[in-house]
Amino acid sequence: MNAPEMNTQWRLAAFPQGEIQPGNFEWVCEPIPVVGGGQILVRNIYLSLDPTNRLWASGEETYLPPLKLGEVMRGITLGIVEDSQHPKFQPGDIVSGMLGWQRFAVSDGEGVARLPRAERLPLTTYLGVMGHVGLTAYFGLLEIGRPSPGETVLVSAAAGAVGSLVGQIARLIGCRSVGLAGSAEKCRWIVEDLGFDAAINYRREDIVESIGRHCPRGVDIYFDNVGGDTLDAAMGSMNRHGRIIVCGQISQYNQQKPHETFSHMRRFLVNRLRMQAFIISDFLPRAPEAYPVLLQWIKEQKLTYRFDIVQGLEEAPVALARMFAGGNTGKQLVQISAEPSGYLA
Amino acid sequence: MNAPEMNTQWRLAAFPQGEIQPGNFEWVCEPIPVVGGGQILVRNIYLSLDPTNRLWASGEETYLPPLKLGEVMRGITLGIVEDSQHPKFQPGDIVSGMLGWQRFAVSDGEGVARLPRAERLPLTTYLGVMGHVGLTAYFGLLEIGRPSPGETVLVSAAAGAVGSLVGQIARLIGCRSVGLAGSAEKCRWIVEDLGFDAAINYRREDIVESIGRHCPRGVDIYFDNVGGDTLDAAMGSMNRHGRIIVCGQISQYNQQKPHETFSHMRRFLVNRLRMQAFIISDFLPRAPEAYPVLLQWIKEQKLTYRFDIVQGLEEAPVALARMFAGGNTGKQLVQISAEPSGYLA
Repeated sequence: MNAPEMNTQWRLAAFPQGEIQPGNFEWVCEPIPVVGGGQILVRNIYLSLDPTNRLWASGEETYLPPLKLGEVMRGITLGIVEDSQHPKFQPGDIVSGMLGWQRFAVSDGEGVARLPRAERLPLTTYLGVMGHVGLTAYFGLLEIGRPSPGETVLVSAAAGAVGSLVGQIARLIGCRSVGLAGSAEKCRWIVEDLGFDAAINYRREDIVESIGRHCPRGVDIYFDNVGGDTLDAAMGSMNRHGRIIVCGQISQYNQQKPHETFSHMRRFLVNRLRMQAFIISDFLPRAPEAYPVLLQWIKEQKLTYRFDIVQGLEEAPVALARMFAGGNTGKQLVQISAEPSGYLA
Repeated sequence: MNAPEMNTQWRLAAFPQGEIQPGNFEWVCEPIPVVGGGQILVRNIYLSLDPTNRLWASGEETYLPPLKLGEVMRGITLGIVEDSQHPKFQPGDIVSGMLGWQRFAVSDGEGVARLPRAERLPLTTYLGVMGHVGLTAYFGLLEIGRPSPGETVLVSAAAGAVGSLVGQIARLIGCRSVGLAGSAEKCRWIVEDLGFDAAINYRREDIVESIGRHCPRGVDIYFDNVGGDTLDAAMGSMNRHGRIIVCGQISQYNQQKPHETFSHMRRFLVNRLRMQAFIISDFLPRAPEAYPVLLQWIKEQKLTYRFDIVQGLEEAPVALARMFAGGNTGKQLVQISAEPSGYLA
């Protein structure tokens, strides 16, 4: 008889002070939970790591209730239903939801989506273009930004999960697309493989000068994933009636008391800028509008996408810290367990 | 024979460095200009002083071309047509436009509006509620802010020209209205005479604490006329999906290189705030929507308004500097010449 399989988890052990670190988490083994009435048991296959995880772990009220110490770390996962006492789910269903940094999760199905089988896409796609990442790029750029063909779209963290899609969607709708990224290789990738019109290496270049050079008609839309000085620099290049889409602030999440200095508020006024933040959960009811468009672009091979997949749930804390240092290219995932065989067959 | 009447003007003599001062202007006397084909001669009666005048004089590109040294200072005036070779204007017409800090102006009629005679309102009203000031409050609050009944509207410079109207309009549409003003008398005025729900004396009170106390359900809309630290404080009180209307930044206009520090950008993100600037000229084509509403409110005595009228064009530079020190209550005007007799008869 084999030893019984255990559940493994990362629980929040200490609120991060400054940089989030592996020591903020505690590794826990416990028996696999048993489903009760109306519940499902999910074996997680992939965990999505997102910059916003830092906010969830902060202990502060954000757009979700703060995690308490000792709770399983919150995270979006993709998994397979192994047991169900829920009328809407069957064993074998592939699902996605906020199922946490753990191998097995029990859920009442609230906020858990069953993924389609007919699209014949790699499973990871549902944590990328066909998941929260794709929706974030789509609704953020199109609904908050409201771009018109011919406008110039500047995007930060352009080799990241959302940024890499934003630049491509901007091109698909007829905009000029310029990305800020943190290495020569990332800059090469977004221009040569993703089709951005230009890339700026923010670690090597004077970004104000480079934005001016690569956006000769100014910036109409700035899609911001980083905040701080990059946001300030971009604001100084915004055209009349320009829009700043506040999607993320990764440069600020590790700050305990962020103070951001803006030197272009006069430009903000005289050019009648709009700066607007959004959280993708606000747009989830409208996801059915976006998915067919995104799927069509995938089928036409108009969207290129890259995953950075770390193997093993054990690696999640290190991978999250690495993401804050800009160590990933493309969407950061952690593979927790094996994909079911024959999924795409 | 009387000595011929001369034209008198304030011309820009030096770009202000820091605070705008009377020494930035030069007093010029010259012959009254003669109209040519397609032109009108206007005798200015009232000059409107507005915080944005500081930007116009800055020598910098803003939303209007920068004034050059030696040019007549730009300003919105109300006057009477004394001579016309323009088919649309007759002598005796009361007009308003950007006719400058001068007793007489010649214009081709571009941007000059003929005011209605039928409304039987005091002439000054057309530089107040029924002019750019009223339109600014109306479209800024309603179109940029999009308030709903029951929401809380916070407004800065609440005893000023625009702010005093914003708070009253907010009340008229069913919002809670809280104003920031710089003296006990201004605070008394906006609550007792204008009907604001509460006032905060920003020179005496801890504004963060006071905003919290007077906005117990948080701030849904912040109508900003001042910028800087006040904007930062307000941002820290904004509710989910709150809106910040950037109308003016009087605290910053005298700064050569303004750097504003914001400590609530995380709240901006997690509460999905929108901050949007506007210039009333963008809404002028829609003025016909607003005027009947404003006129109705005036007739029903639902809008209280106060002018601070300085006598004599000579006083304009001193009055402008005084406005930046918070010395005015209500709309600042300069009376340049006498109203025509019998206008309201």
